[in-house]
Amino acid sequence: DIIARAAADMFETGALQGKRVVITAGPTREALDPVRYISNHSSGKMGYALAEAAAAAGARTTLVSGPVNITPPERVEVVNVTSARDMLDACESRLEECDIFIACAAVADYRPADVQEQKIKKGPDDMSLTLVKNPDIVASIAASEHAVFTVGFAAETQQVLEYARGKLERKGLDMIVANDVSSQGIGFNSDENEVTVLWPGGEVAMPRARKSTVAAGIIAQIAMRQDP
Amino acid sequence: DIIARAAADMFETGALQGKRVVITAGPTREALDPVRYISNHSSGKMGYALAEAAAAAGARTTLVSGPVNITPPERVEVVNVTSARDMLDACESRLEECDIFIACAAVADYRPADVQEQKIKKGPDDMSLTLVKNPDIVASIAASEHAVFTVGFAAETQQVLEYARGKLERKGLDMIVANDVSSQGIGFNSDENEVTVLWPGGEVAMPRARKSTVAAGIIAQIAMRQDP
Repeated sequence: DIIARAAADMFETGALQGKRVVITAGPTREALDPVRYISNHSSGKMGYALAEAAAAAGARTTLVSGPVNITPPERVEVVNVTSARDMLDACESRLEECDIFIACAAVADYRPADVQEQKIKKGPDDMSLTLVKNPDIVASIAASEHAVFTVGFAAETQQVLEYARGKLERKGLDMIVANDVSSQGIGFNSDENEVTVLWPGGEVAMPRARKSTVAAGIIAQIAMRQDP
Repeated sequence: DIIARAAADMFETGALQGKRVVITAGPTREALDPVRYISNHSSGKMGYALAEAAAAAGARTTLVSGPVNITPPERVEVVNVTSARDMLDACESRLEECDIFIACAAVADYRPADVQEQKIKKGPDDMSLTLVKNPDIVASIAASEHAVFTVGFAAETQQVLEYARGKLERKGLDMIVANDVSSQGIGFNSDENEVTVLWPGGEVAMPRARKSTVAAGIIAQIAMRQDP
């Protein structure tokens, strides 16, 4: 099929030769106190697979990774971060040396307003926690003065394509990869994925496959779109 | 020293032969929505090391484990759970076949009051989250009608021994293991630990050592105290 052919062509020609790619992966963790945090079920597998595919296509690849349990791919520089703010700092500091930015991490939308220095003792039956919005990493990068081809991800549990296209437009992205994390066997923590890649004016659905295959397909789409 | 000698004696004699031990390990995760949760930095290493030491001392051992990344020890039955309420259910269902209960898990004290069925969309700048208290697993087991020798853990960042002795008394435990998780290189996610074991009327400090060594020392103390 067309996706497999595009992926094969890409690896034959080193379609991202000379390009510098920064990819975020995994969850972020937002501290409540020295031992507790808010996080999410992202395993980092999709981001790591993308890094491997980008490196295989010839790109100089940096992975900005939240806490995961995956062996880093060869030929990829890994920068380990914990919180969303750490992740934004790490990405921004690499923007001048970045042609393509892929925001695959499941960044926490909110963090606790206050981080307690000591472990919070168990107290009353109910507790109220105030959360504040985290920076929107992919929107910041898309809006920056550096000309970076910016790819976002939309992990949704309902109305997946509508939400994804909304994000693409609202955040000024060049491409977005949508997947339905409520489906069994794909998305968070599984080895397979099934995604739709959307850009202004078009979209392509990729069949369910191993994350390495899906990653190669996404990298092929990026190579075609960012340098038509 | 006396701890090493006690541990060596125990393994020569199979000090827990015929005993049934249930051990909780790891963190719990408390869902906010299908993808987000509150958790903590417990790696589960200490609980898994205790299970290995209990099995080596001859006990029939069950590990009730939150989400961790550790290969389960041989000769140990593993029951995987996610939330504090799941963990309590799993422990209570095994109480009739339990002589010694060791609560090593870092159970979340609170969980979100409401679990959203769909992924929470990013909304206003601030958000308030209402948390409700989780069941106190070790206190429930200590207060149950079954005669179980109950051992708690106290992971603290300050006034460690005072807090630990307070917990021992307030929860009616037979023993508590205190450690200072604010120290570098011990406690959460590290391979070493340094603990003090307290019981009504006494305590013993164990020197910093690998978690397997500390686990053997704790199991030796339990064997001595529960069957003097």
